[in-house]
Amino acid sequence: MTRYVLQIHCPDQTGLIAGTTQVLAKAGANIVDLTQHSAKDIGIFFLRAVFEIEENKIEEIKNHLDLLSSHLSLSFKIHDSSKKQRLALFVSKTDHCLYDLLLKQRDGDLDCEFSCIVSNHTVLGPVGGVFGVPFYYVPSNQEKQVQEDRFREIIAETKSDAVILARYMQILSPAFTEEFRYKIINIHHGFLPAFKGAKPYHQAWAKGVKIIGATAHFATEDLDQGPIIAQDVQRIPETASIEQLVQLGKDIEKRTLSSAVKLWLEHRVFVYEGRTFIL
Amino acid sequence: MTRYVLQIHCPDQTGLIAGTTQVLAKAGANIVDLTQHSAKDIGIFFLRAVFEIEENKIEEIKNHLDLLSSHLSLSFKIHDSSKKQRLALFVSKTDHCLYDLLLKQRDGDLDCEFSCIVSNHTVLGPVGGVFGVPFYYVPSNQEKQVQEDRFREIIAETKSDAVILARYMQILSPAFTEEFRYKIINIHHGFLPAFKGAKPYHQAWAKGVKIIGATAHFATEDLDQGPIIAQDVQRIPETASIEQLVQLGKDIEKRTLSSAVKLWLEHRVFVYEGRTFIL
Amino acid sequence: MTRYVLQIHCPDQTGLIAGTTQVLAKAGANIVDLTQHSAKDIGIFFLRAVFEIEENKIEEIKNHLDLLSSHLSLSFKIHDSSKKQRLALFVSKTDHCLYDLLLKQRDGDLDCEFSCIVSNHTVLGPVGGVFGVPFYYVPSNQEKQVQEDRFREIIAETKSDAVILARYMQILSPAFTEEFRYKIINIHHGFLPAFKGAKPYHQAWAKGVKIIGATAHFATEDLDQGPIIAQDVQRIPETASIEQLVQLGKDIEKRTLSSAVKLWLEHRVFVYEGRTFIL
Amino acid sequence: MTRYVLQIHCPDQTGLIAGTTQVLAKAGANIVDLTQHSAKDIGIFFLRAVFEIEENKIEEIKNHLDLLSSHLSLSFKIHDSSKKQRLALFVSKTDHCLYDLLLKQRDGDLDCEFSCIVSNHTVLGPVGGVFGVPFYYVPSNQEKQVQEDRFREIIAETKSDAVILARYMQILSPAFTEEFRYKIINIHHGFLPAFKGAKPYHQAWAKGVKIIGATAHFATEDLDQGPIIAQDVQRIPETASIEQLVQLGKDIEKRTLSSAVKLWLEHRVFVYEGRTFIL
Repeated sequence: MTRYVLQIHCPDQTGLIAGTTQVLAKAGANIVDLTQHSAKDIGIFFLRAVFEIEENKIEEIKNHLDLLSSHLSLSFKIHDSSKKQRLALFVSKTDHCLYDLLLKQRDGDLDCEFSCIVSNHTVLGPVGGVFGVPFYYVPSNQEKQVQEDRFREIIAETKSDAVILARYMQILSPAFTEEFRYKIINIHHGFLPAFKGAKPYHQAWAKGVKIIGATAHFATEDLDQGPIIAQDVQRIPETASIEQLVQLGKDIEKRTLSSAVKLWLEHRVFVYEGRTFIL
Repeated sequence: MTRYVLQIHCPDQTGLIAGTTQVLAKAGANIVDLTQHSAKDIGIFFLRAVFEIEENKIEEIKNHLDLLSSHLSLSFKIHDSSKKQRLALFVSKTDHCLYDLLLKQRDGDLDCEFSCIVSNHTVLGPVGGVFGVPFYYVPSNQEKQVQEDRFREIIAETKSDAVILARYMQILSPAFTEEFRYKIINIHHGFLPAFKGAKPYHQAWAKGVKIIGATAHFATEDLDQGPIIAQDVQRIPETASIEQLVQLGKDIEKRTLSSAVKLWLEHRVFVYEGRTFIL
Repeated sequence: MTRYVLQIHCPDQTGLIAGTTQVLAKAGANIVDLTQHSAKDIGIFFLRAVFEIEENKIEEIKNHLDLLSSHLSLSFKIHDSSKKQRLALFVSKTDHCLYDLLLKQRDGDLDCEFSCIVSNHTVLGPVGGVFGVPFYYVPSNQEKQVQEDRFREIIAETKSDAVILARYMQILSPAFTEEFRYKIINIHHGFLPAFKGAKPYHQAWAKGVKIIGATAHFATEDLDQGPIIAQDVQRIPETASIEQLVQLGKDIEKRTLSSAVKLWLEHRVFVYEGRTFIL
Repeated sequence: MTRYVLQIHCPDQTGLIAGTTQVLAKAGANIVDLTQHSAKDIGIFFLRAVFEIEENKIEEIKNHLDLLSSHLSLSFKIHDSSKKQRLALFVSKTDHCLYDLLLKQRDGDLDCEFSCIVSNHTVLGPVGGVFGVPFYYVPSNQEKQVQEDRFREIIAETKSDAVILARYMQILSPAFTEEFRYKIINIHHGFLPAFKGAKPYHQAWAKGVKIIGATAHFATEDLDQGPIIAQDVQRIPETASIEQLVQLGKDIEKRTLSSAVKLWLEHRVFVYEGRTFIL
């Protein structure tokens, strides 16, 4: 028996839950977990089902769902949970998010493999060594096109399924983010959409906000505007300096990014019209 | 079409989701919402389904589920959502929880009717008048048995489905809590199970805890030990006095109780072996 | 002995704490509470001292501080805590913030008097009656100038020290907010500066944010941009509809506004270059 | 100029703030930060002052405070901030707290030196190597007395000022905790005082609590009862298994312990009658 995750979204209509479970049951699948949400404000239905079935039966299910697809304007994806996803970690010099991801994966909290660490600095190379993850140095003092072609090669060579920007402080080109649409997760050190752009903690301090946050989101062509996957916040001491905000922010950043990666690995993230729905 | 909520729990086994949805689909029901949870630590499966069907078909569903019952050691309940639940509010002198419930019900946040306000003091009588809820004065300087018999009469007369102890500062007898098992919701002004018994804020202060909370739970024979429905917490200023803890606690108490009442009204609360599972 | 609150701010320099406490001690004042903060990012020092002294000695303290003023570029204010502040409550139709303030004041959590309730609708008139606060109806279907002149009269007649916009859904003119600079507190139903303008919950939903908040701030000419006094947040269910966000938001709004009013009443709020510092 | 931190506590009485600041000012000290709290419920006054003065003047201040001591039943301590405190880290096999402390110290968030890592297992030895902290292996399969004598030697050899139990899963003897009274900080993986003893996450799950927490406290003879320094909490998914609670708990544990260590290093922690006051 292999475990699969099915993701469906389509215009809301009666019979969707019963219809889907019937397709799975008929093929002999055992449904382990089922979550669905009907977003009334836009009339769209989302469903996530975890099921177990013999590998040779999965095609039958796909065929049945294909039939439903055109009928119900339904989009679906099936993910094979037996194959570990491989994530490429992009970093600059800061390592709090990197360590948090590496330690959580090692402890079994994140069910994935890290395919590589890519950095525009060499300083975090040794961390790759300690955790047995190959390290690639791609300097940022060359043309963006050249850098990103190198990224494409590394992603292909290391068979990476997605890219995690774990405090990678360089901007990616629209061509690149489009090519890996919804496969690049970024951590923004601010509570989006409040503090877009550079130095969000400076902005937060200047506004005198009482609570700071971090946002993990898909990287898209619109910088810091991609669909939000996870957010967390923390009340700050009234007397905190900008420097203290930066330090307080690190804890929020790392737990928010790890949490977003986990949601993505479990295929809980749906993107629809610029926002996510997490099931 | 009438809307119903189905609650199921049984030993975990394969086929439960597919089986249940099939029963509903066959009878022509439209499943609007489905949540389930398999608690691996105890091997028990819980399912909550909201569905719509014509009223005369509901018996068919009950019959099918009865068949499954013995087969799968399955327990189920079906609630008719078209009938508003009627809640009796028990209070003493403090009114922050009372107002919060009355205002939320009036604003449509709580889908229920308040059948009566019962108090061992007369001071909150006028509030009943303002909100159009009949007020009953049952003094506590008489025998508990006498008081509780009066409660039974009031509950019967006012056709109350459940009792909300909205800061009712009297202890109910085991006989009474047993008779209305899982139908009496209490708000405890402490983060249970930490501060059982009297004066929880005094206890919290003496321990120097940094965060206080409130707990809404079913009243049972074991005082302050009944299954927990909802909890909330708040960080406290280090310099807070006991009196300030009491005042800070009020906000937590009212939102925790309202939240528990809402979960109960939506039939999201399952009780199993002394704890709840909220779906 | 009368209790006073002293607020000071000035460019940071050595000797400020010792200097200030010496002035108070020499005059025979007993310092009950002292908080200070040196905001390193802008080089400004803030101090709040609560002290007790015989009323006839307060002039001596003022004179000494006047001397320091020019010397140290120091600004100071002294508030007499024995005189209850009088707050005018402005509302439209929604009453959750109104009730919360009225109940907290009645319970002694807010040390003030409510001088009047002003509304552009008549629906909340009876609430004023229940709590013994005079109600003024100022329709919004007349020229803004006319309305605001009426506000000025009411504020003068009722001897109001400040205005609380407890979900008053009308925009005040720059002339009016300037006249009552840092004396009008507004509750914005969004986590500013993220969701300025109308329908913040709709905006939050469309962005798919995972946490919503409310912001209490001084009303200024720049709509929703005035200095922030208090903020609070709450994680939202992923499946929440816009309508549910609105309902969830009410609890946050009321506790955030009450908390801001309390900070203001205790003279803990300093405004400097567009942001507050709370001591 | 050297920076010092002064900690005072004594029965509350008038003139304490003015008196203390006068002593400091007379000796020529510049007061950088001053916090005080009068705990009305017990009538005790606490004060923390950060001040700068030439090193040779500190004796004068001590003499003056000695005079006040007997007069006012006042206890005081003066800490020299120019000398980095040295902390011994005790661990077993789990490393999330260890890494968090090491990384935060390296990043400048914790102003201290780690004098050694002590463990009853060898598995975390290499971490010491990576961060340049000497590692000592003290197996727990020998008599407690023998182990603790070895601890005493290590603490003396490495000139450690305090011990951080960063998930050290062995019980220390009353003699040892008494000897290092308020110098041993433990992280308990539960929201004390709710879940004392072993397996707090199992206890929390069985009770169905909706929020879990962690508690950093001084280790004392009464296991898990020592004065609480810091606490943090997190709402948990209703469907979380015990194993997931354990994993979710790790983030809370590490940030709570780091936060407690930081408070201790800054001399913000006062202990009085079994509880702390944090200034």
